Amino acid sequence: MNNRTETSVTVIGLGLMGQALAGALLKAGHPTTVWNRTASKADRLVAEGAHLAPTAGDALRASPLTIICVTDYRAVHELLGAGDAEPDGTTLVNLTSGTSAQARESARWAGKRGARYLDGAVMAVPPAIGTAEAVILHSGPQADFEEHKPILDALGTVIHLGADHGLASLYDAAGLTMMWSVLNAWLQGTALLRTAGVEAAAYAPFAQQIAAGVAGWLPGYAAQIDSGSFPAEVSALETDARAMAHLVEESEAAGVNAELPRLIKAMADRSIAAGHGGEQYPVLIEEFGRPRAR
Amino acid sequence: MNNRTETSVTVIGLGLMGQALAGALLKAGHPTTVWNRTASKADRLVAEGAHLAPTAGDALRASPLTIICVTDYRAVHELLGAGDAEPDGTTLVNLTSGTSAQARESARWAGKRGARYLDGAVMAVPPAIGTAEAVILHSGPQADFEEHKPILDALGTVIHLGADHGLASLYDAAGLTMMWSVLNAWLQGTALLRTAGVEAAAYAPFAQQIAAGVAGWLPGYAAQIDSGSFPAEVSALETDARAMAHLVEESEAAGVNAELPRLIKAMADRSIAAGHGGEQYPVLIEEFGRPRAR
Ligand SMILES: NC(=O)c1ccc[n+]([C@@H]2O[C@H](COP(=O)([O-])OP(=O)(O)OC[C@H]3O[C@@H](n4cnc5c(N)ncnc54)[C@H](OP(=O)(O)O)[C@@H]3O)[C@@H](O)[C@H]2O)c1
Ligand SMILES: NC(=O)c1ccc[n+]([C@@H]2O[C@H](COP(=O)([O-])OP(=O)(O)OC[C@H]3O[C@@H](n4cnc5c(N)ncnc54)[C@H](OP(=O)(O)O)[C@@H]3O)[C@@H](O)[C@H]2O)c1
Repeated sequence: MNNRTETSVTVIGLGLMGQALAGALLKAGHPTTVWNRTASKADRLVAEGAHLAPTAGDALRASPLTIICVTDYRAVHELLGAGDAEPDGTTLVNLTSGTSAQARESARWAGKRGARYLDGAVMAVPPAIGTAEAVILHSGPQADFEEHKPILDALGTVIHLGADHGLASLYDAAGLTMMWSVLNAWLQGTALLRTAGVEAAAYAPFAQQIAAGVAGWLPGYAAQIDSGSFPAEVSALETDARAMAHLVEESEAAGVNAELPRLIKAMADRSIAAGHGGEQYPVLIEEFGRPRAR
Repeated sequence: MNNRTETSVTVIGLGLMGQALAGALLKAGHPTTVWNRTASKADRLVAEGAHLAPTAGDALRASPLTIICVTDYRAVHELLGAGDAEPDGTTLVNLTSGTSAQARESARWAGKRGARYLDGAVMAVPPAIGTAEAVILHSGPQADFEEHKPILDALGTVIHLGADHGLASLYDAAGLTMMWSVLNAWLQGTALLRTAGVEAAAYAPFAQQIAAGVAGWLPGYAAQIDSGSFPAEVSALETDARAMAHLVEESEAAGVNAELPRLIKAMADRSIAAGHGGEQYPVLIEEFGRPRAR
């Protein structure tokens, strides 16, 4: 491509997320090449100044950096390495969602083909892309991240987690667990309170305050885990378990779903059975770190 | 009692919590009468100026307001209504932990005996009592709460939730579900990341930020529940479910416990099976509001 420069960038995959990524890069002034299996999804971007490559291979060769964001890793591998779409000599940033194992595999695959590879995870919805609110996690060689950070910065708050290519997926999974857990706990409480005629809007600020308050304890609790010592400074697991029994009872008596309260209690009961009743809550890391058959 | 005044107060039950409650009342200058089954637990409070009543009945008659905080509701009823411990003519504030059904039953029981009754729940550990950080929930007749609020204020941030005596226990259960859910989600993420050598202290600030961020969505999501309409403004449940599958896969592949990820996915899958795949997350309220056999 004749207009290939240091700041030029390619985006492959123009679904909801890919279009948002390419749009933010264009807006930041980067010469942007795009490609999508269904070419019509590039129309709006081309109107905004994007260059539409005729093939995925042409797209890869158009810029020193290619961001790929498609449905899943299977789609990534159907697309790259097929036909003329060889990633040799380029840097790939793969923002497709997947597992850490898929990320590490793709890194090996790219390495064999002479490409540099960063794996990433987008912790944001498409409308947030291009704002500081959009957190985008990256993992892989630090030098490759630093080299392209000036371009990646256009996408949001970009973070490098470490050299292990699996880290972005792992942090993503951990963060999503937190997201759904806060939402589920709130739904459980809302369901309980609705049985007494309390509106969701009345309970939400209370739930918000508790979630934010408890979140503030995490750094202190983390120190217990890293030191492997769990003195009951504020409360012992045994005491917690009594209140967990009330929780299960409330949910069952109210006729709402009780699976979440039962799981909370089951994890604590197992830890108590393992002899940790006099220790503090983070001792449960031993239960969470251990697989259990269905 | 000859020194009974409008600001005098009785505390029955001097466990860890009862001692903290009585201590805060003394510190605020209230003439405080105490009683405990094991009298020696009053020693420190008596040294600080508390009056130790010889019997629970004497304690009840010593003040227009009695706060009771013992192990459980069974202990409350073994104690009150036995011997000379009749609560007629007094106002009881029961800060013992229990279920909403127990609270409503106790309110009927107290009413029959000519006592006024407020049920409460202490959302704090003993060392926090007497500071604004200690949230103490109350439910029952508003007028009774307002009358005694000037005394109760000495205990922390006191809140009246409504006339239904069950509300304090319900909010308590809901709040505890949030507390343990944030902690469990954090433990799940910590367990996952430890398999890649990430320390708990490195992940905690990230988990904290996500929890607080998601908590901020709750008031907006509550509006969807109260209106019964769940348009997919930021993401559809179906999209979420794909990422939930990665979550289960990550946990299983990493060899950590996968029960929490599986429950998250199971709830969403059921809602999708019920036809809500195109709607937004809070539509899950229908699953949370419905009982399910073990
Ligand atoms: N949307 C979000 O809120 C969000 C948030 C965080 C992360 N993500 C992640 O971002 C990635 C993309 O999501 P999206 O919302 O953009 O999805 P989408 O709107 O469904 O778009 C999917 C994209 O993948 C392409 N694709 C699928 N299979 C392909 C194949 N075999 N060969 C070539 N191209 C293929 C599609 O091409 P066609 O147009 O030709 O079908 C389309 O460009 C996913 O991994 C998703 O988990 C999304
Ligand atoms: N500690 C906390 O962090 C905390 C936080 C929130 C809520 N709470 C709730 O506060 C309540 C009290 O907790 P705590 O920490 O003070 O417990 P605790 O230290 O174990 O004290 C229990 C108290 O109950 C009394 N008691 C038990 N059975 C009795 C009976 N049959 N007759 C008379 N008295 C009886 C005990 O008297 P003896 O001294 O004679 O045994 C003692 O005063 C519980 O419902 C708890 O769930 C505690």
